[in-house]
Amino acid sequence: MTEIEPPYYAVIFSRKLSGNTEGYAEMSSTMQTLAEKQPGYLGLDAIRNEEQQGISISYWDSLEAIQSWRNNVQHQQAMNQGTALWYQNYQVKIARVERAYAFDSGDKE
Amino acid sequence: MTEIEPPYYAVIFSRKLSGNTEGYAEMSSTMQTLAEKQPGYLGLDAIRNEEQQGISISYWDSLEAIQSWRNNVQHQQAMNQGTALWYQNYQVKIARVERAYAFDSGDKE
Repeated sequence: MTEIEPPYYAVIFSRKLSGNTEGYAEMSSTMQTLAEKQPGYLGLDAIRNEEQQGISISYWDSLEAIQSWRNNVQHQQAMNQGTALWYQNYQVKIARVERAYAFDSGDKE
Repeated sequence: MTEIEPPYYAVIFSRKLSGNTEGYAEMSSTMQTLAEKQPGYLGLDAIRNEEQQGISISYWDSLEAIQSWRNNVQHQQAMNQGTALWYQNYQVKIARVERAYAFDSGDKE
């Protein structure tokens, strides 16, 4: 995401999908669009591989913003479908970002 | 990683490799083995995709442990090679994990 001055908060979501992925991609996309509209949403880093594993880290300006998104009714329905259908397992960590720095090399391709 | 009771610390490392990856996998593996031997090291979540992007999150019991690993001479040499040769860009965030929870479904494959 765009660099923002700490402190802010991160929700680290690490998951493995089950064999049943029907409807998952669409719901994931819908939830991402909805998350972006929530107050306090700052950005996302996400990556997935071909073994159905993924890590997504969403960034928020406060713990209250995270709690509010967690309480969102559409999000709760999606999370319930996730545990019922799509997720083999997941781990969530809520963390306070204290420092951030970056490196960018323009001249390497 | 194995679930550990918060608080503890996370180093969120998000990177994209350059076109030159010669020697990178070996160095990455060497550094992971060395990190596991450091005092205060708790574990790692890591994932990469086929577009040379990766996120790795290492967990530590204190900011001092993170600083000590950052000051490790072999690690510093590796980081210097990384910026000179391998990384197109990276972002680092240091965060204090405040809450952690997990879901595991035994019956979905």
